[in-house]
Amino acid sequence: MKNWILFLGTIVVTFLLAMLVFSIMNRKTEAKFAYHAQVAIEGIEPRDTLWGLNYPRQYQSYQKTKDTTFKSMYNTSGFRDALAENPETIILWAGYAFSKGYNQPRGHNHAVRDVLASVRIGAPKEPGGGVMPSTCWTCKSPDVPRLMKEIGVTQFYSKKLSDFGSQIINPIGCADCHDPQTMNLTITRPALIEAFQSMGKNINQASHQEMRSLVCAQCHVEYYFDKTNPTKKGAQYLTFPWKNGYTVEDMIAYYDSIGFADWVHPLSKAKMLKAQHPDYEIYTFGVHAKRGVSCADCHMPYGTEGGQKFTDHHIGSPLANVENSCFVCHRTKVEDLVSDVYERQGKVKESISQLQRHIAMAHLEAEQAWKLGATEAQMKNILLGIRHAQFRWDYVAASHGAGFHAPLESSRILAAGTAIIQDARIELARLLATLGYNQQVKMPDLNSKSALQAYIGVNLEKEKMDKADFLEQVVPKWLKEGKEREARKKVTMLR
Amino acid sequence: MKNWILFLGTIVVTFLLAMLVFSIMNRKTEAKFAYHAQVAIEGIEPRDTLWGLNYPRQYQSYQKTKDTTFKSMYNTSGFRDALAENPETIILWAGYAFSKGYNQPRGHNHAVRDVLASVRIGAPKEPGGGVMPSTCWTCKSPDVPRLMKEIGVTQFYSKKLSDFGSQIINPIGCADCHDPQTMNLTITRPALIEAFQSMGKNINQASHQEMRSLVCAQCHVEYYFDKTNPTKKGAQYLTFPWKNGYTVEDMIAYYDSIGFADWVHPLSKAKMLKAQHPDYEIYTFGVHAKRGVSCADCHMPYGTEGGQKFTDHHIGSPLANVENSCFVCHRTKVEDLVSDVYERQGKVKESISQLQRHIAMAHLEAEQAWKLGATEAQMKNILLGIRHAQFRWDYVAASHGAGFHAPLESSRILAAGTAIIQDARIELARLLATLGYNQQVKMPDLNSKSALQAYIGVNLEKEKMDKADFLEQVVPKWLKEGKEREARKKVTMLR
Repeated sequence: MKNWILFLGTIVVTFLLAMLVFSIMNRKTEAKFAYHAQVAIEGIEPRDTLWGLNYPRQYQSYQKTKDTTFKSMYNTSGFRDALAENPETIILWAGYAFSKGYNQPRGHNHAVRDVLASVRIGAPKEPGGGVMPSTCWTCKSPDVPRLMKEIGVTQFYSKKLSDFGSQIINPIGCADCHDPQTMNLTITRPALIEAFQSMGKNINQASHQEMRSLVCAQCHVEYYFDKTNPTKKGAQYLTFPWKNGYTVEDMIAYYDSIGFADWVHPLSKAKMLKAQHPDYEIYTFGVHAKRGVSCADCHMPYGTEGGQKFTDHHIGSPLANVENSCFVCHRTKVEDLVSDVYERQGKVKESISQLQRHIAMAHLEAEQAWKLGATEAQMKNILLGIRHAQFRWDYVAASHGAGFHAPLESSRILAAGTAIIQDARIELARLLATLGYNQQVKMPDLNSKSALQAYIGVNLEKEKMDKADFLEQVVPKWLKEGKEREARKKVTMLR
Repeated sequence: MKNWILFLGTIVVTFLLAMLVFSIMNRKTEAKFAYHAQVAIEGIEPRDTLWGLNYPRQYQSYQKTKDTTFKSMYNTSGFRDALAENPETIILWAGYAFSKGYNQPRGHNHAVRDVLASVRIGAPKEPGGGVMPSTCWTCKSPDVPRLMKEIGVTQFYSKKLSDFGSQIINPIGCADCHDPQTMNLTITRPALIEAFQSMGKNINQASHQEMRSLVCAQCHVEYYFDKTNPTKKGAQYLTFPWKNGYTVEDMIAYYDSIGFADWVHPLSKAKMLKAQHPDYEIYTFGVHAKRGVSCADCHMPYGTEGGQKFTDHHIGSPLANVENSCFVCHRTKVEDLVSDVYERQGKVKESISQLQRHIAMAHLEAEQAWKLGATEAQMKNILLGIRHAQFRWDYVAASHGAGFHAPLESSRILAAGTAIIQDARIELARLLATLGYNQQVKMPDLNSKSALQAYIGVNLEKEKMDKADFLEQVVPKWLKEGKEREARKKVTMLR
């Protein structure tokens, strides 16, 4: 009898052990730690190639952000000329670098090279040359947190873009969002931490699911460069205008309260605000955010490869991967899900186009009023209307995917912007009549990029030649210096 | 052996028979036919009390449409004064009966009595009195298809509302949507059948699921009264403007092409269109329609009573019954689903309010222009703008639930309407300046119902006295006559 029990017991224990071994062999949870680490990641390591030795699936999928050929109704190639598609915006941005050149953004892998190639940054020949501050680099590279650690945050914000030409050489990568020791998501940019503080919140209390959006919110937000902080003299300190909240009204109230302007418009003389890309903010007003869906849930959905579950790091449109993104919640035909998105974007785009036309007309009408001798007092309220309407337009237009992330909030903002700009134009019509000009203002062809750039005095020929020189003579030198610097850093192979 | 097989066979057959009996006893499908018919429903029977003998659950739940006390953020009682809540609309509807009185609608059960109590229909003392045509009754009662069958459709549309005071006594009920023989859903109103024909479609090919919306679309649509058909002389023939499609642009193109106007505005002299309640049309632009969800799926969800599945005929807001409506597809907290609706409606309402204010101002500015001697030629384009903007506003504002049924389409329309009305106001500002009036037009208090009704010359005192007389003297007589007429109809009891 005793032997028999022992025999049975042995069978049971063996069986349970076999199951344990089997379950371990078959587990499909994501590998969080370096399960086959090849190399030690030390300090803030900006080179994805090294991280990739430890995390080949994440690395290889992230490398696909080079590819921006995903075809969609609104995005047929990776390098579209947004000014040619929306010529009126040249008037909206007159006096600001966006009126020179503005291409639709490409994948993360292009972050550094597309900045260097942009006419907006000019063609600085030497460190310290050009007008763009070093702050412009903040979102472009994991070299940024490395440099911030080395020289200090305020110091990082206190130079010229050209000062860091040989420092910022790796495009957005692993170290921007991951802690190399734990692979946990981490916030590497002080602006987001400080923005939370300004709202009385502590970002360290964010859940993992919230972090799956917040790492994106380090960059995909509205921001401005604060030059007024007396304790940070000389810095153009990257700041998010979140103190009052995320709505467009909250932000306008904030900017008005501190008297901030990105630039003064040369035609209308309005004190303008340039919205960057309040992607995270607008996302919070949509139903996906309300249901707890994070950026990564759709833009970096889970996938499997050889039975191994992993987060697909090919960040891009979920429409290129509906099966792994939308299908997690929505059991509907792919074509319905895709057309849902385009229908929403199309309706919002209609109101964007309508509004930008009216804002362009307002700038030109204001220009005419000044020419005819309008006074500051007569123009004050009109210029405030232009400022407020254009920020509303830009808040939606500049935000990637606003038309889908929060379609109704976007549309509400555009309707309000339309009322505001048209109120300003009614006031302008009365003022122009007062000044003896009671008719429609003659305008350049609002459908022609070249006519409008000529009108505002943009001449790109010399800038383009300088840029070609810059890309041929200066950039390779920066890159060579940077690579040599990196080569001096010791790498510890683990096996 | 043979006996044994026989024995087993008997057991199997008995078992299967028992299961069949059990399944029949337990079936929970909806009773389609009169499972315990008490009374024969003959012809078009407008009395729900008779239908109710055969279908007590459906009848009893439908009777609950008397109750309109469902509390919501936007609907705190069943009899809200829409003019007091939106005083500017008095200017928008000047010269049209809506500027006298406009209450939020109540449940179906109130259809007849609320029409009779409305100041909009006046207080006709005799058959043939008053100005409202008999066509106004079309959506109010199952007495309408009965009468149409008895006297003919064109004849029905050719009288005065007061001509049928003793004929139309039953509020919207069973016979409006059901075939009494089969209980199938059926279209009883010719206007919908004809609207399908105008689009080259045949409504008889509609599926059962489509019919679960189309029975509602007999009434919950935009329509107008056509007086121009030479073959239907004297009739005000109920017509849906669907020939070009359902969008607001399609409808405006249709109305413009036939030169139709509901009335000429006494202040601006614009040829106005009154949108009724394009509920069905707007619903078709929303995601619920795209996913094949019908009106009945949310507004008449399935319920059970004593194990019997039936369609809840207490038609009303799904928010009063989230568990049986939204929950069928959406597994989310009730408070999230409810706040989803209110958030959407709130954003749309904001744009509605903004637009109606601007339209009111345009009417008053146009009035001023006429006073100062504007010419038809100068006003032509402005008045077209007012017509088009106000129809856009009304298309959304008058549609029940537009802000939820198709929030983005609603918002898109309001943004477009805002641009159009403000364009008209810019032109008005220039014209007023030409006429020597280069300043803001002085306006009555746009926040005061009484001030605005006084401004447009509405004096309700006499009308209210006449109405009280009418309700006391005339209506009871009509009702008595109608009841006596009904009592003469033989009813066949079945058991």
